[in-house]
Amino acid sequence: MARLLRVAGASAAGFFPRLQTPVPTVRTFSMSLTSNQVASPVWNLGRLNHIAIAVQDLEKSKAFYKNVLGAQVGEMAPIPEHGVSVVFVNLGNTKMELLHPLGNDSPIAGFLQKNKAGGMHHICIEVDNINAAMMDLKEKKIRILSEEPKIGAHGKPVIFLHPNDCGGVLVELEQA
Amino acid sequence: MARLLRVAGASAAGFFPRLQTPVPTVRTFSMSLTSNQVASPVWNLGRLNHIAIAVQDLEKSKAFYKNVLGAQVGEMAPIPEHGVSVVFVNLGNTKMELLHPLGNDSPIAGFLQKNKAGGMHHICIEVDNINAAMMDLKEKKIRILSEEPKIGAHGKPVIFLHPNDCGGVLVELEQA
Repeated sequence: MARLLRVAGASAAGFFPRLQTPVPTVRTFSMSLTSNQVASPVWNLGRLNHIAIAVQDLEKSKAFYKNVLGAQVGEMAPIPEHGVSVVFVNLGNTKMELLHPLGNDSPIAGFLQKNKAGGMHHICIEVDNINAAMMDLKEKKIRILSEEPKIGAHGKPVIFLHPNDCGGVLVELEQA
Repeated sequence: MARLLRVAGASAAGFFPRLQTPVPTVRTFSMSLTSNQVASPVWNLGRLNHIAIAVQDLEKSKAFYKNVLGAQVGEMAPIPEHGVSVVFVNLGNTKMELLHPLGNDSPIAGFLQKNKAGGMHHICIEVDNINAAMMDLKEKKIRILSEEPKIGAHGKPVIFLHPNDCGGVLVELEQA
């Protein structure tokens, strides 16, 4: 996954450069503080929201999950503001998101150039307080790929964590 | 993921060569058949059982999910018969399995040689009838990486589908 970042130019907004809408930061503290104390904000990790799969042929992949595996598969939805077309695969307890580039500067085009067959692009885990998570993870020296949470493909604030700080996995955290 | 298969030598048992215990095939038919009809056996896809992540440093990855993300993380469990050490990360609705090679011929050693930072190795989806799924998928020309279902790391029958037939994703199906 590290190569993804290099493809994207190693910029802070490299993975999803179109996610540009900042979200106001709300600081939440877990206890009373003295003037020189800053407590870690309170946040909790939640359920797996989705696995994102980058695919070369959205109709072919849709047919595979629907007709071959028999999964519940939605219709293709273009999301031009994020540079992807998406098909949801419902697995009951979570979902897969099949992603295909849309437009000339899609954030997943580089991944598909490197991974000709397609492949697993990222995982998304829910959190109950995205701003608190971001503050806490910054304190823990986890690199975050944007200065602030951005509005993601589901209309909710998200951040992406640097895969080199997450064992090679691109991890998205989404406000539940 | 296609490179995984090449690393593993493109053999039918290339990914998990230690999964050698065959499971008796039970044929289930969905309707009455005439002498020259063979109906597809009945099977249903279920929930996402886990995402498997290959990691270079199991203790470091365990600490990341436990101490940095605050996930519920189990203890390291060696599974010598499968050539891996495993740590489970409970996400509530599903789980992650952190895999590290154990022994000299671990099925994930090649993946980590190619992916120095580690990364997403495969996904596992449950099915209600592994033998029916295998028969049906063979009919649908999906390559399966073993001649028969094998007993997987959870003690249940599993099969692996060729990533080149699954959009670059190594897909494990496990008997629920």
